Amino acid sequence: MALVQKAQKAKEQAYCPYSKFRVGAAVLAIYSTVFLTGCNVENTSYPLGLCAEMTAISKAVSEGYISFKAIAIASDLEDCFISPCGACRQFMREFGSQWDVYMSKSDGSYKLMTVEELLPCSFGPDDLRKGKNPVGNSKL
Amino acid sequence: MALVQKAQKAKEQAYCPYSKFRVGAAVLAIYSTVFLTGCNVENTSYPLGLCAEMTAISKAVSEGYISFKAIAIASDLEDCFISPCGACRQFMREFGSQWDVYMSKSDGSYKLMTVEELLPCSFGPDDLRKGKNPVGNSKL
Amino acid sequence: MALVQKAQKAKEQAYCPYSKFRVGAAVLAIYSTVFLTGCNVENTSYPLGLCAEMTAISKAVSEGYISFKAIAIASDLEDCFISPCGACRQFMREFGSQWDVYMSKSDGSYKLMTVEELLPCSFGPDDLRKGKNPVGNSKL
Amino acid sequence: MALVQKAQKAKEQAYCPYSKFRVGAAVLAIYSTVFLTGCNVENTSYPLGLCAEMTAISKAVSEGYISFKAIAIASDLEDCFISPCGACRQFMREFGSQWDVYMSKSDGSYKLMTVEELLPCSFGPDDLRKGKNPVGNSKL
Repeated sequence: MALVQKAQKAKEQAYCPYSKFRVGAAVLAIYSTVFLTGCNVENTSYPLGLCAEMTAISKAVSEGYISFKAIAIASDLEDCFISPCGACRQFMREFGSQWDVYMSKSDGSYKLMTVEELLPCSFGPDDLRKGKNPVGNSKL
Repeated sequence: MALVQKAQKAKEQAYCPYSKFRVGAAVLAIYSTVFLTGCNVENTSYPLGLCAEMTAISKAVSEGYISFKAIAIASDLEDCFISPCGACRQFMREFGSQWDVYMSKSDGSYKLMTVEELLPCSFGPDDLRKGKNPVGNSKL
Repeated sequence: MALVQKAQKAKEQAYCPYSKFRVGAAVLAIYSTVFLTGCNVENTSYPLGLCAEMTAISKAVSEGYISFKAIAIASDLEDCFISPCGACRQFMREFGSQWDVYMSKSDGSYKLMTVEELLPCSFGPDDLRKGKNPVGNSKL
Repeated sequence: MALVQKAQKAKEQAYCPYSKFRVGAAVLAIYSTVFLTGCNVENTSYPLGLCAEMTAISKAVSEGYISFKAIAIASDLEDCFISPCGACRQFMREFGSQWDVYMSKSDGSYKLMTVEELLPCSFGPDDLRKGKNPVGNSKL
């Protein structure tokens, strides 16, 4: 599958000296034929690293896309369909919950789920709006 | 329910001048009767903020707990059971997937799901170990 | 020094199976004699981990403190005064820039700098307020 | 200045419905004439947002660059040279501390500092290696 192959190719650029765990991702926007790709970019201070999915989606947003059809994820795991971490699922969900996530094994086979299925009962843009407290925290 | 009430109480300490969205959380460790609580702690640079669930769980870890029975989450939303964001689900999942998440409304009613149900097909500690690439990225 | 000793003690609770790099922190609020402590809490998905300083400060906020006098940081490094990562400096700066950061070696000796010195020309709460664009992004 | 202009242009793609604070960044790799750009990409769950600098640098890494000459940052602020948050300084520092950061005002004027000057006494790749505890945390 083309999207998975793009994710596999993107994996080669992974900067992961700490985890040694290479991940690639490729995203396809709606009404587009352009594949935007990303890899994980780790940091000495681990919490500052970025996942491949975040890199790919933020790249797409920075190039003007905000509606997506599908994303594919690839790692070196032979026996496991690599799934997005919870943070990436939330990052995806910002741009809708009805799009496709192709989780692949290293041989290119894949499993398909929607963002909604991966993040049920999600907290999204609409929920935040409803919850605004007009008073807020005025301690500072 | 006691755990939800602790989360509601914890919400009062929320530091959320940016979102004005107050959240509280309370966690209960296995073999313990101590409730550890947290609130959201926001930052001018939004990505640096912490969710209430992260605050509560990291507090618990810093006090020696790493096995949990349940967590409750509370917000000011009247009509919505506040659910954890994807990042918090992953943060919880580090410490097991078979524990309970009580998502509450402001009146104290709640909905119960396990971490597993909130983060299906999750990527956890075991998966990382399997995927280590002995070569890694040696570009730097 | 008492604050450094508290940070060293807090380090023992570090949950760091990935980096094997244990860090502890202790914070002292203004008008308070209570030391609040934290440790690093890592995650399989590295970007979701928390640093010791974040854990300690968020714990303090969740217990009602938002003005701080000093924080101490401790690691197992013998030859290096452990300094906070950039994210932690920003996390500290949210609560003022004129407070003290004690960076210690494993023998308890330390080096002292202010948040301001560690994060010169910082971007803080006031800057965000000035920059609000009334129109925002209305693409979604 | 060309790099600042690229950052200003990149700002137009900012996805910032929550902060309404648009930021753009442009990075120039060593031995390259290609400018890689990014914008902030926010999230309903604020901690999951990405800064413009992170987007630009991760995009560059995903395209094979890991040594940088300079980065420029642009916002809508008229009276303030927009400076990177602490997390972005750490993200930059992963790829060296002797490169240039152009912090600009909305009229294109700028202030120049190095990563080192913005993040003194930083914690970088070498420090982590020194601090590895062979035992680690074996609680789980």
